[in-house]
Order: sequence, then C-alpha cells, then structure tokens
Amino acid sequence: MKNTVALLTDFGLNDNYVGVVKGVILTINPRVKLIDITHRIKSHKINEAAFVLRTSFSYFPKGMVFLVVVDPGVGSSRAAIAIKTKNYYFLGPDNGVLWPAAEADGIKKMIELNDKRFFLKNISSTFQGRDIFAPVAAHLCGGVYFSHLGKAIERIKKLDFVLPKEKRRFLEGEVIYIDKFGNLVTNIEKSFLQKFLKGKKFRATLAGKKIKTLSGSYVKNRPNEPFFIEGSFGYLEVSLKGESAKNYFKISPGKKTKLIIKKI
Amino acid sequence: MKNTVALLTDFGLNDNYVGVVKGVILTINPRVKLIDITHRIKSHKINEAAFVLRTSFSYFPKGMVFLVVVDPGVGSSRAAIAIKTKNYYFLGPDNGVLWPAAEADGIKKMIELNDKRFFLKNISSTFQGRDIFAPVAAHLCGGVYFSHLGKAIERIKKLDFVLPKEKRRFLEGEVIYIDKFGNLVTNIEKSFLQKFLKGKKFRATLAGKKIKTLSGSYVKNRPNEPFFIEGSFGYLEVSLKGESAKNYFKISPGKKTKLIIKKI
Amino acid sequence: MKNTVALLTDFGLNDNYVGVVKGVILTINPRVKLIDITHRIKSHKINEAAFVLRTSFSYFPKGMVFLVVVDPGVGSSRAAIAIKTKNYYFLGPDNGVLWPAAEADGIKKMIELNDKRFFLKNISSTFQGRDIFAPVAAHLCGGVYFSHLGKAIERIKKLDFVLPKEKRRFLEGEVIYIDKFGNLVTNIEKSFLQKFLKGKKFRATLAGKKIKTLSGSYVKNRPNEPFFIEGSFGYLEVSLKGESAKNYFKISPGKKTKLIIKKI
Repeated sequence: MKNTVALLTDFGLNDNYVGVVKGVILTINPRVKLIDITHRIKSHKINEAAFVLRTSFSYFPKGMVFLVVVDPGVGSSRAAIAIKTKNYYFLGPDNGVLWPAAEADGIKKMIELNDKRFFLKNISSTFQGRDIFAPVAAHLCGGVYFSHLGKAIERIKKLDFVLPKEKRRFLEGEVIYIDKFGNLVTNIEKSFLQKFLKGKKFRATLAGKKIKTLSGSYVKNRPNEPFFIEGSFGYLEVSLKGESAKNYFKISPGKKTKLIIKKI
Repeated sequence: MKNTVALLTDFGLNDNYVGVVKGVILTINPRVKLIDITHRIKSHKINEAAFVLRTSFSYFPKGMVFLVVVDPGVGSSRAAIAIKTKNYYFLGPDNGVLWPAAEADGIKKMIELNDKRFFLKNISSTFQGRDIFAPVAAHLCGGVYFSHLGKAIERIKKLDFVLPKEKRRFLEGEVIYIDKFGNLVTNIEKSFLQKFLKGKKFRATLAGKKIKTLSGSYVKNRPNEPFFIEGSFGYLEVSLKGESAKNYFKISPGKKTKLIIKKI
Repeated sequence: MKNTVALLTDFGLNDNYVGVVKGVILTINPRVKLIDITHRIKSHKINEAAFVLRTSFSYFPKGMVFLVVVDPGVGSSRAAIAIKTKNYYFLGPDNGVLWPAAEADGIKKMIELNDKRFFLKNISSTFQGRDIFAPVAAHLCGGVYFSHLGKAIERIKKLDFVLPKEKRRFLEGEVIYIDKFGNLVTNIEKSFLQKFLKGKKFRATLAGKKIKTLSGSYVKNRPNEPFFIEGSFGYLEVSLKGESAKNYFKISPGKKTKLIIKKI
C-alpha cells in the first residue's frame, strides 16, 4: 500500500491549497490513492495535528505514507524530514508534529529531505507542502528508495503530550482536544485512572462543575449529568447524553482547562 | 460497482473520524472507491440525514454501498443493520435514517449485523462507524455474501417525512431543509401543488411574507420577489433571485416553519 | 490523464450537491478519478472562482478535465461551454469563470454544449452541474471526442482581473483574495513591483497602516510588522509573522481595499 498517501494539514478547505498538493502528487504519479485525515487543524497548531496523527495512524493500511503539513516555520531553516517506522512512512516539517505517531509505531530511520531531484523545480518559501512534501510523497509511492530521498539524520524535534500529574489523593489532568460533538478529550487514559483509583470511587471537577461517573456508553446516562467515557481516541472524555459537553462546561478550545480527579 | 462506498455522516470535517473510517475500509480492502456525500449533517439529526440520503441515492452507481452514520443511540441496544434494495446496499444504525431511501428503492432483504468476524477486534461503545460499519462495508465490497453478514430480520425502524396537509381551500406545508444558497426546501412536490390547484392561482404565506409565483428558473424573477421553483431535490423550494431566501424570510434552520398556500 | 476530473464549485460541503455530481460522473464512467479543488467559493462569486482556477490549474496533470460550477445564471440563456486548451479541458458556464485559466494555458477550441445525448435525461433549471456538466465530463473522460460534445463557437465571455494602476510615483493595487491564514493576496506581481521600483525603496499603505518591507520568508520578520512576500499564488501578499494580516488590517473579504505603494 505504498501507493496511498493520507493528508493531514491546517490548510482549510476554502483555498486551493489541498487541491494543488493533490494535483502535484498526481502529476508525478497518477497511481497514488489519496485520503484526507483532516485539513481543519487550527492554523499552525502543531500539538493539535500531532494529537490527531497519533490517534489516527494505526487505523490506516500498513506501508502507506502520511503527509503532514502544519508548518509555522515554513521558509526558515527547520528541516523537511521523512521518517520510516515499523509500518509506515511519515513526511513533514521537523517541528515535532510527526514525533508522537512515529515514536508510537517505532522509528526505524530518519532522513532530511535535501535531494532536489525529488522537489518541484521552483521552491517557494511559503508553500513547501506543494513544492517539497507533495513531490517527495509521489516519488516515494513510485518506488524511489526511502534512503535515496535525502541524508540520514540522528535527531529530530520531539513533542510530548502533557501527562496527567499524579498526587497522593488526586489526579490533575487537562482537556487536550474537543471534537465536533463537543466531547472533551482529556489526557488521561482509562487504565491510568483505574490504576490510580485501585477500586475506590472518585469525584472530579472541571471548570467548576462536577463529574461523578465513569460510563460504558453515552445513552445510559441521564440528561444534564456529565460523565467520563473511554472515547474514540483511546482517552477518557467528558461527555453528556444528547448534548455538547463543551457547551455545558463552557470550555473554549484555545484555553488550558484543568481537570481534578479526587479519590474518595 | 459493489467496490464503491458512499459515506454520509454527521462526523464533520474537523476531527479524524472520517479519515479513520476510510483508513479502516482500505486496510481491509484496498480496492474500495470512496465518495463523500456529506459529513456535515447536524449532530444527531436523523431526519436531515434521511432526507439527504433519500434525495441523493438514485444518482449513484447501481450495486454500490451506502454507509450512513448518524447515530445518537451508539452504544445502546439499537441494532446495526444492512439493507439490500433493488439497486443498492445500505449500512447504518436501525434508527430510521436508512428507511426513506431504502423504501423508495425497494427493500429486498434486511439483516442485523451480528457476525463479529466482519467487525474490528475491539468494539468501542462510542465509534461503531469505525468498528462495525466500516469493516462490514469493506468485506461486502470484497465479495462477502450479503446474507452472511448477520441474521435476517423482518422489521426495522421506519421514518416518514411530514407530508403537507390538504384542506379544502389551502395546503399546509413546511420548510424541511435549507441549502447553502439559502433556498428553502419545502415538503411539497410540484405535481402535488398542481393537482391541488387544478389550474387556479394561489397566494402563499411564509413567516409573514407573501409568495405569488411559481417560476421555471431563478433568473427570470425580479429582485426582492420570492417565488417557488422546483428545486434540485425534487421538491418546491422558496427562492429569490441573487439572494438568500433564508435571510429574506429570516428562517432559522432548527425551527419548524409553516407554509400556507391558498387557492384563489 | 483524461480520466481525471478536478471539481471547483460554490456548492459548499453541507448539502449533497458535490456528492451527487460525483455519483453522476461515476454512474456513467466508473473509471474517472475525482479531485476537489475547493467547493467553498463564496456563493455566485465568479471572480473568486476564476482567480482560484487561474492560480491552480497548472499544478494538475496534463490532459485532465476541470469541471467548474459557479453559476448565478443557471437556467438562463447563458451557454454551457467546454474549452480545449494546450494542456487541459475546461467545462463550465459561459460567464467568464473559465476565461483567465483557459487563456493563460492557450485556447485551442471552444464548444457550446448542446448535444443532449451527453446530458442526463431530465435537465432541471436549477442544477446543471448535475444534469449537464457532470455527464459531459464523464463522457469526455470515457473517450468521446471533444468536438462531438457540441457546436464550435468563436466567442465566450471574458473576465479580466483588475490590474494595478501605475502612476509616476506610485502604484495603486488592491487586495483580491484572502486565504485561510489571513494572508492578503494583492493583484501585484513581484516582478511588476520590482520593474516599477527600479532599485528604489518603497513605502506602502493599506487600510491606514504601513508596510515597509518585501521579505523572502514569513519567519524572518518581527511580530506586528507587516511585510510583502511573494505568496503561493504568484502574487505579492501582505502577511505578518505568526498572525493573520486580515485581522491586523481589519480587512473584510467582500469589500474592495486599495493598496498604495509609493516609490521613495
């Protein structure tokens, strides 16, 4: 499945940016299959893109290529890199965006993309998704050896998600992502909470409101009573039945929101 | 064309949900072709999705699969179902969303999806689009017999659109959909209106404003004069030339808005 | 690559319009590959679509088909046309939207689409993207000769972008497009500015604020200091480091905004 490229960017869907990237790929290699993960990462939000990539990649066909462009440093000296992992290839800027996913899959080899034979002829300082990453992805799908794409490197920028802090009687986590339905994704995994609780009960507080239960499904809960649920991203989410938890808790996406879980 | 899957969901385009569903399908069956109908159904609005599916399906290649996930009851005991109709396959939750389209095409066979061989290994209670419907669609496209996907059932949840009420001297309809251009789609078919009028004229009222004409095209009308037109969905729509009827009538999408057509 | 169709419309992503157009194409010709340029052109904004098409087309595979529907005159007597250029085929309404791209590539032949064998059976007055352009694109990709699609015509509607005005000591340009990142795309090409300046310096004014530099990259600038940069569309853009120039200058997309560049 090296003929498949999944795209993850902050380009949005209003402009021609995504279309042009796809046009460049298909011009070089008409056999590539393209899948969109999302293009609506908030502009320049590396953390958000890294989280979305980390929680998505394992559902995609092995052997394929992820092309990730969330790149506030475009045109600077930050490198354009490619990572070969146990099961996939990742292309993107060296700003940490690829790190959590690549590390989770197991990094085999890292390369700085510096062989201009695989770029477009004119390299702008504003759109390397089009000029560098798209053509490299097309050539990689077309059979160019990974190691021929540039020079091997030893170090890339790392990016680690904030882990919950464990105190003696409470956990301090935070909301790290809010989805379209208003579910509040926390940085706490269910197994982590259960290990902390050791069978005891809990009471949690978020934005001044209480959360009292850990539920197995959305529908078994009462209206207006928020609960934790193990969500689609593999983390605990704060949700409400038939309602947006984002609205209920009045959480705004950009702001850091603390979650305190007390063992009782 | 059983190798094609059209997707209709309320997942939105910000999160990775649509991408992950596609990744799961292509992991199981890399030959599937994917088309998006829309992913911007308002969250949990079964009626809206049922309307969009009903007015779309016949334009798609015969033999293909529709994967529809608008599923407020995910994780409850509502069944996951598949319907074979005269020309298509429909997969989705048993909440009525598939009914109007499937019924219009002619239902041949209905199945409850309960054969776990065709699911992902871990079934979450929050994302059955990924864990059940996507893999089943991939296996169906890959040649698994429809009847092998689960056990035959006799009854599924029905969902019928509101019909216009016919009184002696007037018709009472409503606005059931508003499109991107602000066209107000009513639940009245042109032939239904003509049969009611029997050659007489009409005067219609919507949100306190009058509609006086039934027009054959957008452009032949004067500015600021709303008119009926047989729209792209096959129903009468209320439109204005070069302007949004939604704005002109100040209609809000969520609210039920009555339309009265009087024979004069 | 005549088997590839790139779509550019103002249909938006909420309704089923884009999906239905794709369904029609694949019903007639299941081998067509589809790429979206964007569907979020503002409703009926022919200029915006023409600009997006003009700045996109050359990145797509030669031989392919562009299907462009931004069509305020649908249902009027405006013709449905097809243009064969040096490298591509363009399909759309005769309202100027195809002109800048087709002219830039070199027009070879123009046709009015009037052969109903290549249309859907029922032609609505509201959705010719579905009823005319989609089936014609599918047939063209399927091997129908371009010249068989309709009758040759000599003239189509032209649309020219506003050029900057050159006075003795200053240039008067304008903002013609704003992208997702808030970059303000002007109608001035870098080479045009350099020819005007002949090595001298400049001072520019936009919406009451000053722009003092022409930069080679986003990142080398200071915060809060707007600059010109040759952007991804091939025009000078007004940008800020890590911030939206649209917000900084308080520019609203619909309104014409003058840019004055003075030679000093």
